[in-house]
Amino acid sequence: MKNTFGNNIHFTLFGESHGQEIGMVIDGLAPGIKVDEDFIKSQLDKRRPQGKISTARQELDPFRIVSGVFNGETTGTPIAIIIPNSNTKSKDYAKLKDLPRPGHADYTAEVKYHGFQDYRGGGHFSGRITTPIVAAGAIAIEALRSKGIVIGTHVKRCAGVDDADFSNYSEELAKLNDKTFAVIDDAKEAEMVSAIEKAAADGDSVGGILETVITGMPAGVGEPWFDTVESELSHILFSVPAIKGVEFGDGFAMADMRGSEANDSFYMDGDKVKTKTNHNGGINGGITNGMPIVIKCVVKPTPSIYKEQDTIDMNKLEDSKLTIEGRHDPAIIHRARVVVDSVVALCLCDMLCGRYGTDYLK
Amino acid sequence: MKNTFGNNIHFTLFGESHGQEIGMVIDGLAPGIKVDEDFIKSQLDKRRPQGKISTARQELDPFRIVSGVFNGETTGTPIAIIIPNSNTKSKDYAKLKDLPRPGHADYTAEVKYHGFQDYRGGGHFSGRITTPIVAAGAIAIEALRSKGIVIGTHVKRCAGVDDADFSNYSEELAKLNDKTFAVIDDAKEAEMVSAIEKAAADGDSVGGILETVITGMPAGVGEPWFDTVESELSHILFSVPAIKGVEFGDGFAMADMRGSEANDSFYMDGDKVKTKTNHNGGINGGITNGMPIVIKCVVKPTPSIYKEQDTIDMNKLEDSKLTIEGRHDPAIIHRARVVVDSVVALCLCDMLCGRYGTDYLK
Amino acid sequence: MKNTFGNNIHFTLFGESHGQEIGMVIDGLAPGIKVDEDFIKSQLDKRRPQGKISTARQELDPFRIVSGVFNGETTGTPIAIIIPNSNTKSKDYAKLKDLPRPGHADYTAEVKYHGFQDYRGGGHFSGRITTPIVAAGAIAIEALRSKGIVIGTHVKRCAGVDDADFSNYSEELAKLNDKTFAVIDDAKEAEMVSAIEKAAADGDSVGGILETVITGMPAGVGEPWFDTVESELSHILFSVPAIKGVEFGDGFAMADMRGSEANDSFYMDGDKVKTKTNHNGGINGGITNGMPIVIKCVVKPTPSIYKEQDTIDMNKLEDSKLTIEGRHDPAIIHRARVVVDSVVALCLCDMLCGRYGTDYLK
Amino acid sequence: MKNTFGNNIHFTLFGESHGQEIGMVIDGLAPGIKVDEDFIKSQLDKRRPQGKISTARQELDPFRIVSGVFNGETTGTPIAIIIPNSNTKSKDYAKLKDLPRPGHADYTAEVKYHGFQDYRGGGHFSGRITTPIVAAGAIAIEALRSKGIVIGTHVKRCAGVDDADFSNYSEELAKLNDKTFAVIDDAKEAEMVSAIEKAAADGDSVGGILETVITGMPAGVGEPWFDTVESELSHILFSVPAIKGVEFGDGFAMADMRGSEANDSFYMDGDKVKTKTNHNGGINGGITNGMPIVIKCVVKPTPSIYKEQDTIDMNKLEDSKLTIEGRHDPAIIHRARVVVDSVVALCLCDMLCGRYGTDYLK
Repeated sequence: MKNTFGNNIHFTLFGESHGQEIGMVIDGLAPGIKVDEDFIKSQLDKRRPQGKISTARQELDPFRIVSGVFNGETTGTPIAIIIPNSNTKSKDYAKLKDLPRPGHADYTAEVKYHGFQDYRGGGHFSGRITTPIVAAGAIAIEALRSKGIVIGTHVKRCAGVDDADFSNYSEELAKLNDKTFAVIDDAKEAEMVSAIEKAAADGDSVGGILETVITGMPAGVGEPWFDTVESELSHILFSVPAIKGVEFGDGFAMADMRGSEANDSFYMDGDKVKTKTNHNGGINGGITNGMPIVIKCVVKPTPSIYKEQDTIDMNKLEDSKLTIEGRHDPAIIHRARVVVDSVVALCLCDMLCGRYGTDYLK
Repeated sequence: MKNTFGNNIHFTLFGESHGQEIGMVIDGLAPGIKVDEDFIKSQLDKRRPQGKISTARQELDPFRIVSGVFNGETTGTPIAIIIPNSNTKSKDYAKLKDLPRPGHADYTAEVKYHGFQDYRGGGHFSGRITTPIVAAGAIAIEALRSKGIVIGTHVKRCAGVDDADFSNYSEELAKLNDKTFAVIDDAKEAEMVSAIEKAAADGDSVGGILETVITGMPAGVGEPWFDTVESELSHILFSVPAIKGVEFGDGFAMADMRGSEANDSFYMDGDKVKTKTNHNGGINGGITNGMPIVIKCVVKPTPSIYKEQDTIDMNKLEDSKLTIEGRHDPAIIHRARVVVDSVVALCLCDMLCGRYGTDYLK
Repeated sequence: MKNTFGNNIHFTLFGESHGQEIGMVIDGLAPGIKVDEDFIKSQLDKRRPQGKISTARQELDPFRIVSGVFNGETTGTPIAIIIPNSNTKSKDYAKLKDLPRPGHADYTAEVKYHGFQDYRGGGHFSGRITTPIVAAGAIAIEALRSKGIVIGTHVKRCAGVDDADFSNYSEELAKLNDKTFAVIDDAKEAEMVSAIEKAAADGDSVGGILETVITGMPAGVGEPWFDTVESELSHILFSVPAIKGVEFGDGFAMADMRGSEANDSFYMDGDKVKTKTNHNGGINGGITNGMPIVIKCVVKPTPSIYKEQDTIDMNKLEDSKLTIEGRHDPAIIHRARVVVDSVVALCLCDMLCGRYGTDYLK
Repeated sequence: MKNTFGNNIHFTLFGESHGQEIGMVIDGLAPGIKVDEDFIKSQLDKRRPQGKISTARQELDPFRIVSGVFNGETTGTPIAIIIPNSNTKSKDYAKLKDLPRPGHADYTAEVKYHGFQDYRGGGHFSGRITTPIVAAGAIAIEALRSKGIVIGTHVKRCAGVDDADFSNYSEELAKLNDKTFAVIDDAKEAEMVSAIEKAAADGDSVGGILETVITGMPAGVGEPWFDTVESELSHILFSVPAIKGVEFGDGFAMADMRGSEANDSFYMDGDKVKTKTNHNGGINGGITNGMPIVIKCVVKPTPSIYKEQDTIDMNKLEDSKLTIEGRHDPAIIHRARVVVDSVVALCLCDMLCGRYGTDYLK
């Protein structure tokens, strides 16, 4: 299905970054779920470009919820979140019409949409489209939290700098969710920012790895064929711009392990079933086993760089060159973090409602 | 959706590995597509355990197509491929009922299905369930080939041994598709088999990395939100047992690249648009750009090992131990390869029909 | 979605009437539901042509369930029911290839499938395809019964003869479900059969109206936009061959009522909410209100008649004539009844599981 | 799927009649389709209450399209149409909270949504929700017209008064689409209005029958199991408030026909295949045959009447009485007409795109 995600709860995205408004309709959330507009705002702040390492675009996100919420609670009917666009400078993008930017969707969208694409600012492909997703995700995150399910993501690696590893999930996830630049070891923020600025000074950009942990998911969720937990989560994660790889548990490191190293032994902790290790990231046979779910995503370096690049002229079908102007982030990984949290939350809500019925999240 | 995959063409899987029959229904393939039963048989041979490094289970795959094919061509109505089971030795699995095997789906399926799971041989979770997928995939692979789209996978790395890299896709993909143990450099097969046997001698198992290349896909396929090419392919790949990570193009290696290194510049090759490099694996903004699509998957080491393992007794809810008997492969990566080719083919058919209509593959 | 029905439970049909086998895969039924093969057999008997007013085709339905059921209960994994075909006489249908039968799908299927259609016996369009639906429906009917939900259908009108109306649902529904020719007033069977035989003697056929009642459905089921109870039920009913109209409650008779006549007043019966009348057939605003659901369908007269008919030659694209040979029923309404009960049951299961989660029917 | 309709093109509705805004997102329409805002406005005018027989509610429909359209053409990305609400008088509805109106969804929605329903003005169930559907339908109607497919509906019967029958589709459909009160014989408008006013004077309401004709549909569209043309059209028609029956061709009248009377013989008209009669309403075996599609729907009398009615108090669970105040239409059938045209258009677009691919409507 296009532009709509979910089997039990449907999330439909609409809008172009330089069009009038962007938004999301959430269809199928149970009635009675609390909606906290301040929390939505704080999540949007984590997504917005701010500070030195983000661009000077003045983006505001004055969202409004126009249906589906009454007296601070969901009514059970579709929720529409709409965010008007402002501060768009179309002229920055006029040149692009014929010269596709390498690493971006300009060329592929042109082929797909045969010239009708709203090209200004990447049209439907802009990172700005993630804004309503973050707003919707905020509602999902809080609904899950009320069921004891917590999601958190840190910048595990960026521009060659590694963050510390998790050592205490509940403590560190709580702290992470209050930070704008999400690292476990606060000292690493300065190191990473410095490396990012260095790349920016070269007119270039950097990427990194995000690590996400989900605690509190009940065991038994997921469908072996074809909607395993990995299938569903990767499906929505690979819609987030710039993500080019997703792994669960030890992921690609398991290529060099033996079975005896990779298996997670079961044991009883009181009356709860747990595993001694968690190489499989909380998922066996595509179904959750109750242990924390661990996901890592690679965020490729931002394609918009200031160096001159080789490209083609799509009109004349001949080689050309391109230098991007305007305002561009040298890194977006620290902002992509809240998008990852959001899509993971939307996905988990959908899976849980499939398992437990439409009233589960009340 | 459970047990059914696809938006335009629907693939539904049924069967338990120790039940009467297993099968797949393919619903939506256009009429007029040639179905070559010999090719289906050769694909099933690549999946079946054979030779020294695979177990001694005598599995046969005498498939039959009971509907949807008439005079060697699809009729346009649902195709049902059914494979009877034989040579099942239920007693090997009786012990399992209460002792979940680490790394397998025994515990999670128990929670999900509350005791009703057909546990014999992993029930619905067995690798054998991939058999009808390979049969169906064979039809898809040939349909795609008739449109100039070629898929091929090699064992890029196994038990610490690396295969050669691709240097000439069309030549190497053609050769790969004739091999049972799919490596580009034939000499590597012996090295890998030796490393696998060493692990087997230790009562252990190994995993590795599969690299898949798809050539000939037209540009413009994919849906930015939420069904990007990466989303759709990873969704079905993560249903294949033992896959724990999927990356596209340079994937996780992009974490340490700069934008100038990761971007793929466009240029004209005659009247065709190409990119000078292919770090993005043929996909920009979730849409194909016409360059070869490159995917890498990690296959974790086979969970069934002969060493004693710690587990629990699910009935008594106390710690226990388990030693697996029966017949188990020390490595399945060389057999997983054809499953990967098959699911990729099914997925591409579905995406192409969404783009070009139900008659595209005729 | 083609050939597959359901949002929460997926039913996929496959097979051609003169192909090897026909079947249905049910994907998503909870584990632990009892499966009674004798009841399935009795339902198939109601569908099969028997006796004087049905044709002499010797159809047998030796079904087998090849997955998803273990020890007489569903396992939660997909259930595959397969029925081999026998006693097919292809030669009866050879002539048809170019001469479409009026009222049948011959011409439209030809256009749809461009000549690849398996034309023998109507291919995928044959009434025989309803066989696996009745088998699957039997499982659904019993699952619903275990939750206190009862479905029953009578031949309300046939060949101008009216059955009695319902006066005591629970008593009459129970009796109906034991009858092969489902009428409330047994005396009407002979009258209807006589009228049918009269049409048969003229080489012609008749139709009629089926009235279905469902008791015990909880209130609150249905989705106002776009999956109302009427939408879902009509959707699947209009897939049953020969049904050309569906109405709920007083249906088309409401065209001439005033609001004061058509509205159903609410009242308390103890602590249960009921309505004094039931003009709306148990559904308000697309959602069940707890009163019996009442549906009427028109079954058009069987298109296969023995009189000569005008048609075209699809090959030469010129006018032609056709006289149908072989074995054909002068009426199928009494056999369509169990198909209606079956599809209604499948649909209700799907809706209930959407509302109450995948475990509802256990 | 809830609140979302379509297999290939997805239409998602959101909004409450007394909430801030209502709207629809259309996801999957090809790029390059002309969007005429004046035509959308004229369609909305047909839906809005106007004149003597409609209530005095001052509803305005100042719609805006906030995405998916650029320079008067669709871009291929989701189209969002948003309509702000105004002139809402919540106090009219406060009393309703505990006293469900007979014939309305008050009680059933209460059960479904457990008290969270936004009850003001029927919440999500209000007829006003049809406004964005009509706006979206306008885009679909014009897209279909550009492919030679024309839809039109007349009030066949209302309050016991019959309109003339069709005698020349192309002429009469064209005229109908310019009328606000859609009758073939203009003289009938006055008769019907008079009968409606008589009911209104009694504090009561009336219903009727709408007859819809679609010309120009290509043959071969529809999926025998389970998405026949009748299935798809009835599915969306039964979502329109007040529709309680749908029939195709001669529908329920076929109950009393013989096969020789009901069959439509084929003949050649030049090189086009046609049928001499059209009892089957253009559909054979669930697939279009190229003849005009004929549909009839019954619209029940408006449930909101001024007479006192018996009901219950949902809070105290005891019998009660209710007299509805505020502004209510004695008939809505003449306004439901454009809603029927709209949903039929949305449905046909979806079916055609499934058959011919996403670019069909360009």
